[in-house]
Amino acid sequence: MNTNSLQQRFLALRSNKGFELFVVGVILFSAIVVGAKTYDLPPSVLTAVAWLDYFITVIFLIELLVRFVGEEQKRNFFKSGWNIFDTVIVIASLVPVDESEMAFIGRLLRIFRVLRMVSIIPELRVLLNSLLKALPQLGYVMLLMFIIFYIYAAIGATMFASINPELWGDISISLLTLFRVMTFEDWTDVMYETMTVYGFSWIYYLSFIFLTAFAFLNMVIGIVVSVIEKENAIEEAAHSTEPSMAQLHEEIQSLKAMISKLASDDTNKGQS
Amino acid sequence: MNTNSLQQRFLALRSNKGFELFVVGVILFSAIVVGAKTYDLPPSVLTAVAWLDYFITVIFLIELLVRFVGEEQKRNFFKSGWNIFDTVIVIASLVPVDESEMAFIGRLLRIFRVLRMVSIIPELRVLLNSLLKALPQLGYVMLLMFIIFYIYAAIGATMFASINPELWGDISISLLTLFRVMTFEDWTDVMYETMTVYGFSWIYYLSFIFLTAFAFLNMVIGIVVSVIEKENAIEEAAHSTEPSMAQLHEEIQSLKAMISKLASDDTNKGQS
Amino acid sequence: MNTNSLQQRFLALRSNKGFELFVVGVILFSAIVVGAKTYDLPPSVLTAVAWLDYFITVIFLIELLVRFVGEEQKRNFFKSGWNIFDTVIVIASLVPVDESEMAFIGRLLRIFRVLRMVSIIPELRVLLNSLLKALPQLGYVMLLMFIIFYIYAAIGATMFASINPELWGDISISLLTLFRVMTFEDWTDVMYETMTVYGFSWIYYLSFIFLTAFAFLNMVIGIVVSVIEKENAIEEAAHSTEPSMAQLHEEIQSLKAMISKLASDDTNKGQS
Amino acid sequence: MNTNSLQQRFLALRSNKGFELFVVGVILFSAIVVGAKTYDLPPSVLTAVAWLDYFITVIFLIELLVRFVGEEQKRNFFKSGWNIFDTVIVIASLVPVDESEMAFIGRLLRIFRVLRMVSIIPELRVLLNSLLKALPQLGYVMLLMFIIFYIYAAIGATMFASINPELWGDISISLLTLFRVMTFEDWTDVMYETMTVYGFSWIYYLSFIFLTAFAFLNMVIGIVVSVIEKENAIEEAAHSTEPSMAQLHEEIQSLKAMISKLASDDTNKGQS
Repeated sequence: MNTNSLQQRFLALRSNKGFELFVVGVILFSAIVVGAKTYDLPPSVLTAVAWLDYFITVIFLIELLVRFVGEEQKRNFFKSGWNIFDTVIVIASLVPVDESEMAFIGRLLRIFRVLRMVSIIPELRVLLNSLLKALPQLGYVMLLMFIIFYIYAAIGATMFASINPELWGDISISLLTLFRVMTFEDWTDVMYETMTVYGFSWIYYLSFIFLTAFAFLNMVIGIVVSVIEKENAIEEAAHSTEPSMAQLHEEIQSLKAMISKLASDDTNKGQS
Repeated sequence: MNTNSLQQRFLALRSNKGFELFVVGVILFSAIVVGAKTYDLPPSVLTAVAWLDYFITVIFLIELLVRFVGEEQKRNFFKSGWNIFDTVIVIASLVPVDESEMAFIGRLLRIFRVLRMVSIIPELRVLLNSLLKALPQLGYVMLLMFIIFYIYAAIGATMFASINPELWGDISISLLTLFRVMTFEDWTDVMYETMTVYGFSWIYYLSFIFLTAFAFLNMVIGIVVSVIEKENAIEEAAHSTEPSMAQLHEEIQSLKAMISKLASDDTNKGQS
Repeated sequence: MNTNSLQQRFLALRSNKGFELFVVGVILFSAIVVGAKTYDLPPSVLTAVAWLDYFITVIFLIELLVRFVGEEQKRNFFKSGWNIFDTVIVIASLVPVDESEMAFIGRLLRIFRVLRMVSIIPELRVLLNSLLKALPQLGYVMLLMFIIFYIYAAIGATMFASINPELWGDISISLLTLFRVMTFEDWTDVMYETMTVYGFSWIYYLSFIFLTAFAFLNMVIGIVVSVIEKENAIEEAAHSTEPSMAQLHEEIQSLKAMISKLASDDTNKGQS
Repeated sequence: MNTNSLQQRFLALRSNKGFELFVVGVILFSAIVVGAKTYDLPPSVLTAVAWLDYFITVIFLIELLVRFVGEEQKRNFFKSGWNIFDTVIVIASLVPVDESEMAFIGRLLRIFRVLRMVSIIPELRVLLNSLLKALPQLGYVMLLMFIIFYIYAAIGATMFASINPELWGDISISLLTLFRVMTFEDWTDVMYETMTVYGFSWIYYLSFIFLTAFAFLNMVIGIVVSVIEKENAIEEAAHSTEPSMAQLHEEIQSLKAMISKLASDDTNKGQS
């Protein structure tokens, strides 16, 4: 059996919905229930799940090897970001996790095991790609938000540092406090404290909340509109094979010219 | 009077807005005010409402029986999910709730009584159907969210378990704590606690909040766009009975051919 | 000077942006600063603002009287909801507020005084109209939300009543507690309390949060889509004066018939 | 070298992505890390960053001078809002911040230093412009929100002032408390307190939350729709160079007239 037909088989296995559900189930079960020490499961179940989990990794490994052997140019294989991702995930998942030394390494390996889901579910890759693409779009809004935050932090650190140095001690602490205010997390406690000294400091908090909420709203609407615009552009491109109104107009004009020529010919004939 | 005309009458009764409002009113009043022990209502009112509530159930039962008798193939009746739903609701609502044993059974029966609203209001069925349809769409986003949560939970359980085992004891507890952070519920308390040991742990919380908020935003926008796309597709289908630009173009082309043929015939005739 | 030209003058005054800003400023200043006892303003300012406020009401009264006199059919005047609204507002604003008996009546009159803003700013009437129109649209979603709330309240009251009767004592109290959970207000305190008895009760809270957030999301998207649809319908209606594709198609068909008739006539003539 | 070519060079430097990133990096690093006293950085790093920061301001200053010299009409230079903005920022950034007197002036100067980002990144100016344009759109919704708040504040101050004067003492304090309730910040504490006296006061809070959430939702949807409308208008304007359906219809009509004239001429000729 050549590698090509083997690759076909693995492709069929991976796109099989039943197999996908089984793999996702095992990964989820293994990730939460086995990883947590609070649930008292019989050791036999733990062993069975550990073996299933290991078995899935081995299938992934074999599939990856077949894909690698099938690639004619070995170099091109590692030019694809997702191939590198799959390789790292599979290799890291093969390292056994010893429960006795349930420390840093063990936890990190768990992360790699759960990332196998991204390898098995193509829709997750599509989602991740779209998230990565939208990220730079947010860059400038983030900078604008930072400027708003910084202006308020500078004012806050100047005015309120003596009232509560733990919240307003310097600009970086003030930035954290303002983020807290933006998430509405006990923000009135922060406000009532400064209002005992500066009675009008509610203006500071309310204007900050309005500004950040407003900037955030604008950002969301901007993204929605740009997404809808892209959709429209795609739709229009799909319609571009049809002739445009201008083309139809031209055709009718040439028709007119033909008929008027016909009419004048006719008249000339009649006169001759 | 045959079952068919009876069915017509019940259909008319059910689609009567006044009757619908009356039924919804009785169900709501019976559900909240009578079900709660805190309001001191005169026993006469309680009895009256209980009888009205019972009376509505009996109307529902008769209507259901008429519908069942009217069905020629008795088997098909139970093939419709909503018919089974209605039957279960009506039967469960007929069981009397004894206030003296206001325990588990009584509470469960209350649930079935309030579900009669879904039987009487067709708009609620439409809403429920649309909710059920949108559910699988969310599946992959949920998985992605789970992966983000799991990565942070694994890091959190490794780093912060010794600081507060009740919040970061193992991965499953850390997942719950992170959900709490996502809802902004006293998340600064959680953060300030770990910041006393790891001064830079605010990066952990802020990056987590940004990632989940960003993923959530993307999900919402994705749903909005897919809904708008469907709307556009439906609208376009409605316009499809109209001839397309391409068809018009073809027609004008054939017109041109006819006229040029006419002109050449004319010329030939003139020459002959 | 007849009432008609007077009416024109008042209309001009009311649509004057400068006058609008002045009136809104006086109403806002009078509403907040004078109404609050915490700010120590000199009595002269208070008296001046009170007189300005009174003066505005008198202008409103005269304008209303002129409008009433100008109306030919006195009955029709009170058929418009906004006319009744204006009349009630102006009359209630004329009642003097005695600061010494700063009780129930005084506070209620303040409400009417601030409502004069709705009388002076036409954009606010448009906004209020659109809010009132959107209200029934929400009715069915509210009912669905109530059913979700009620099911969880019935379960909560059954399971958790013995743990904390103040939060889960009966169904109506449980409904309030669940609303609190939906707003994320100290919801983990509620959850941690029940988790000490039922370790898995986090499933109850998380599923509730997901369901209500999901139903809410669906509602918002539904409203957005229905609004966009309406916009599209309006836009299409605006284009409806233009001939449709089908009409153009028909015209070209009739052209074809004319030419083919011309051609056959020509041929016949040639043959004859 | 004349000022014109110098201006070209500065324009090239400013639109260079690498330079932009370098400047943004220095400003951010200088703003947070140097401004905060909590991070123990070696004095050499602090000095280096301070010099880099100063160096950037000098570049900005030279560029601004070149632009000013290049302007033929010196008056027009200060007619552009952004030119005034840039000048103020650069001049204020040149004032040295003395760490020993880390007081009011120093903090304020920090604000101007961070605003240099708006000078270097053109996208931030676009964002700020769009934010400023959207601001008046919100004005009327703000007024409507204020009226809702005021009505509830007047009721709250009347009913609950005796329960907790710190939250409901007068109308302006009640307004602040209601804003707190709208942000869901410990709103149940406020509610439970008044419910001990007025058992039904939960109606007050729930209706307020519904009204404000509903008004807010309406506002967001209104903005989204108006933005989409504008997009559609722009798109339509882009298509306006194409002939309309009505024009095509007219053309076909004139064609028909020509042909029918041709046919009648033909017939006449045949008869003659």
